[in-house]
Amino acid sequence: MENLPLSKPMVGGDGDHSYAKNSTYQGGAVDAAKSLISEAIIEKLDLKTLELDTSKTFRIVDLGCSSGPNTFFAVQNIIEAVEQKFLLSEQQNPSALEFQVFFNDHYDNDFNTLFKSLPQSRHYFAVGVPGSFHGRLFPNSSIHFVHSSYTLHWLSKVPREIVDGNSPSLNEGSVKCNRFVKEVIEAYSTQLKNDMESFLNARAQEVVHGGLMSLVIFAIPDGMPFADTRPGVVFGILHSCLTHLAKMGIISEEKVTSFNVPMHNLTPKQLEALIQTNGNFIIERMEKLGNPKKHVLLSSKGFASMMRAILGGFIREHFGNEFVDQIFDHFTTKIEENYSIFREKGLNMVDLFILLKRVVS
Amino acid sequence: MENLPLSKPMVGGDGDHSYAKNSTYQGGAVDAAKSLISEAIIEKLDLKTLELDTSKTFRIVDLGCSSGPNTFFAVQNIIEAVEQKFLLSEQQNPSALEFQVFFNDHYDNDFNTLFKSLPQSRHYFAVGVPGSFHGRLFPNSSIHFVHSSYTLHWLSKVPREIVDGNSPSLNEGSVKCNRFVKEVIEAYSTQLKNDMESFLNARAQEVVHGGLMSLVIFAIPDGMPFADTRPGVVFGILHSCLTHLAKMGIISEEKVTSFNVPMHNLTPKQLEALIQTNGNFIIERMEKLGNPKKHVLLSSKGFASMMRAILGGFIREHFGNEFVDQIFDHFTTKIEENYSIFREKGLNMVDLFILLKRVVS
Repeated sequence: MENLPLSKPMVGGDGDHSYAKNSTYQGGAVDAAKSLISEAIIEKLDLKTLELDTSKTFRIVDLGCSSGPNTFFAVQNIIEAVEQKFLLSEQQNPSALEFQVFFNDHYDNDFNTLFKSLPQSRHYFAVGVPGSFHGRLFPNSSIHFVHSSYTLHWLSKVPREIVDGNSPSLNEGSVKCNRFVKEVIEAYSTQLKNDMESFLNARAQEVVHGGLMSLVIFAIPDGMPFADTRPGVVFGILHSCLTHLAKMGIISEEKVTSFNVPMHNLTPKQLEALIQTNGNFIIERMEKLGNPKKHVLLSSKGFASMMRAILGGFIREHFGNEFVDQIFDHFTTKIEENYSIFREKGLNMVDLFILLKRVVS
Repeated sequence: MENLPLSKPMVGGDGDHSYAKNSTYQGGAVDAAKSLISEAIIEKLDLKTLELDTSKTFRIVDLGCSSGPNTFFAVQNIIEAVEQKFLLSEQQNPSALEFQVFFNDHYDNDFNTLFKSLPQSRHYFAVGVPGSFHGRLFPNSSIHFVHSSYTLHWLSKVPREIVDGNSPSLNEGSVKCNRFVKEVIEAYSTQLKNDMESFLNARAQEVVHGGLMSLVIFAIPDGMPFADTRPGVVFGILHSCLTHLAKMGIISEEKVTSFNVPMHNLTPKQLEALIQTNGNFIIERMEKLGNPKKHVLLSSKGFASMMRAILGGFIREHFGNEFVDQIFDHFTTKIEENYSIFREKGLNMVDLFILLKRVVS
């Protein structure tokens, strides 16, 4: 079904550089989204529409779950809210209800670590699903609740125009990495919009009518140029750091030029328009999250560690394992040097919560 | 749901000692069982009873799938037979049918390797399920076809009497490993029967009424003393090999005494009686497989390699990684020395095919 396993960036295992140990910020969003998701389930989940009567299995998906532990907290929160909703509903007997949870991520996600760290006291059947969420992952009308947190900024691939570099403005030296050029931003935005469309179409087939989808998306503020956003600044810093190492002869200039990260961000308005145009889901709720870890995270070392857990896989694959330490040491220094800009931009970012309901046809 | 992750013995990855590269014998059984399973699906699968009308998702499970590739061939064979059955049925439209395949094995199975080696051209949704098949793994009435090949000789644990060694006949030196003592055999047999009962009860809840289960079981011939069977001989050889290394001062005698492998075998008659007593499944078919790899496998080196892929994990865990090579080098030599006995016993073993149907209440 899924033909192109894309390189998965999160660092697995539970070592110092692992995603599991460097995802406090994302965990902050799980906390912030927790009460919103509970409320959404109580208010918006229509048990009759879901037709749970025959099977009594409620199926939950976490798309882009990585190797834990944030995913387990998110899932537990959803289950507790659904159980509460069942208790509140007079026609429903929650004791007969069973939960099956599908943990999804790319083929090269560390599922072994994920499985070994599953909570022992859980009250659900746990399942791992490898593959890209830009395509189909589940049978028709089989899922009741989809959750996905900080994943939709990942593209299915680096835009073709960037890889080919045929446009004059796209092939001047190492410009591709830093995203200060209009055409580069446009190529990434178009790719992300196409990917979002594929994502929504695939979920439309998989989610039962009346089923819910909660998305936490790292968005950039409406109207702000990409270069001024935190991802823009980070790509700029990474770029200048790579260029510096190339000048010192440590890595090749060609490698720097051809380095691209399939990641981008849209604004809340762009996302809203996309979902409405797609038409398969109704926006039940859309608001900015107050992520309590937003401030905690803003030490330069902590941020560099988080970026290493996220980008380490790409850096290793492209430059080779022997350069990873050096690149991130330099990156940490650069972040320290640019601390004030970086701090200011970080606070501008939008942690966006969106609750969608599958249109009942 | 699942509280006790049991150490999983199959060696992961795709190295020289991996299960993936040392499971030719088990692959032979997949081939031999192939036509039997196809026939069973055509003859015994009742599409009306399965009530597939609403969801159109046919769910298949391989219990104890290890890290490939045998599991993929087994699953593909089942899917092709189900599609054929749908084609033969006038009321059913096979084009609307979707398959979801659940690959199950223990928590410490190498799911990362399994996922990366999934066939790219497959026409099913693939899912990994960690946990022991002696307990519940799936929601109520959610599975249409269960397959399990060469797995039911694994126990959920070493029998308590063996670990405690309180009975006089069970605590004499290193007797536990070799299974020439009646009480030892009985303890293992009782444990295996209890485990089979748990297995059948869990599946009875998970499999839809009318659903099928195909089992390939490595059984010992009816009426033959366990010590005369191939597993009996193998445990005897392994035991004498460990004792030898203990005498040479390479491993400790205490370690040899406390080494147990949670594996045992029943006879076809014992299995038949168990299934009938349990009562949740009807035996639709039960016969000996002609495994074409039975003869191919009987080189001493090839056999020692297969046993290393199977027992390597236990040996490493108990004795330490540094002794694995030495133990298996010695084991290979011993197998060579006892080649004629071993060869004769090997041909006595029964590769048993059993087809069960979930009783329609």
